[in-house]
Amino acid sequence: MKETNIYETDELVSQYCDFQYGDDYFGVMNFALACAQRAIDYTKSTQQKRALDLGCATGRASFELARAFEHVTGIDYSENFVRVGKELQTARRVGYWQNGEGELKNHKEISADNYDFKDYLTKVEFFQGDACALAPVFKEYDLIMATNLIDRLYQPQLFLQSIHERITHGGVLVLTSPYTWKEEYTAKEFWIGGYVDENGNEVSTLDGLKKILEENFELIAIEDLPFVIRETARKFQHTISQMSVWKKR
Amino acid sequence: MKETNIYETDELVSQYCDFQYGDDYFGVMNFALACAQRAIDYTKSTQQKRALDLGCATGRASFELARAFEHVTGIDYSENFVRVGKELQTARRVGYWQNGEGELKNHKEISADNYDFKDYLTKVEFFQGDACALAPVFKEYDLIMATNLIDRLYQPQLFLQSIHERITHGGVLVLTSPYTWKEEYTAKEFWIGGYVDENGNEVSTLDGLKKILEENFELIAIEDLPFVIRETARKFQHTISQMSVWKKR
Repeated sequence: MKETNIYETDELVSQYCDFQYGDDYFGVMNFALACAQRAIDYTKSTQQKRALDLGCATGRASFELARAFEHVTGIDYSENFVRVGKELQTARRVGYWQNGEGELKNHKEISADNYDFKDYLTKVEFFQGDACALAPVFKEYDLIMATNLIDRLYQPQLFLQSIHERITHGGVLVLTSPYTWKEEYTAKEFWIGGYVDENGNEVSTLDGLKKILEENFELIAIEDLPFVIRETARKFQHTISQMSVWKKR
Repeated sequence: MKETNIYETDELVSQYCDFQYGDDYFGVMNFALACAQRAIDYTKSTQQKRALDLGCATGRASFELARAFEHVTGIDYSENFVRVGKELQTARRVGYWQNGEGELKNHKEISADNYDFKDYLTKVEFFQGDACALAPVFKEYDLIMATNLIDRLYQPQLFLQSIHERITHGGVLVLTSPYTWKEEYTAKEFWIGGYVDENGNEVSTLDGLKKILEENFELIAIEDLPFVIRETARKFQHTISQMSVWKKR
């Protein structure tokens, strides 16, 4: 069986391979797995036919959702990310490089056979795509999950204002984000929150989300979900994402 | 008593005010306090007259060392950092802004009177200075502590090769670093470790430190010390620094 090593040059892809398939750090549960488990819980009383994992990165949560859903679509803006999920489906193995100290690196391998999702690989279909301009074919989902996506979109309103059209009646939208708004990703005029409005009032992102989403959804749960991204042998990002769960009216 | 608010525009100074004087996160002890306590422990059997805190940032560890040492010198390359320590000595209060979500910020205040070091403020003298080119006057220290400094120096050899000249016989050098070598701070030819040498062998930073320091010092302890730096309300750097303790022969 061939092993793919096409990602050695792309540091961010390697970082996400480790984030989604590697070890846990500081006792914090794998974030893709945790998100998928929560999303499966929140759709227990709903039909669990079709799920969309938007901003799927290297595909771990898509595979985990496939343990409960009949079909899962994984979409990411980066073709390099999506390729990892596809390679796991075909070659079942992906190699990547984990940063050590300075320029030192450790070679690591993801083997699909080591994961509980190994029997569900073919239930997932991966696509490169833009969450702000999704093709019409992506519709009729019982679950749409977008983890750590909204503060990296150039115009998150485009995604949030129309996403209900792609969800079945009673279906669920799961968002997670640490609300790390940055002008390099999102022009300030398009931030959902994290600013002072023209009346001098502070607008939180949760307030902004409610304003957009409550027309078509009911907010059914809010929780904090931590994640850790390993940068080097000794340096990690440790972040508390906020998960908000929205049920389509 | 006047309150200083001169740091509102300098994001890094505010981040370090929070790091050195603010709350603990994820149950990780304040790093400046932890380093000072360890350094005081490691000099228990030595004279505790003069201590140098090199790369002192906003001065917390300098003040903590003053609880055991008769005199402490705090030196940092950044005048903006050093000014916080000086202001705590004169005005006893410093204001800063803590990042919230997006552009939202919380105003915070450091009041020297809330800390156990409050009676020792005047035992510390702060200076702007370059660790790679220290003035001759900085000498005869029983302890030199350099926390998270060596991987931010443009030529750490200049510091490491001559630092023994400034330490008393039997005195102690305490280094901490996560060894996050980056070419933007240190040209690769000057990295102490974290590279593959001309024979194809991996050189760790600890190996590199031993090679330089063991001529004049005995390595007496190694330990891992974690620290957390708050970037936003939800995003943190969580890092495991390596502390190495060297006793001058």
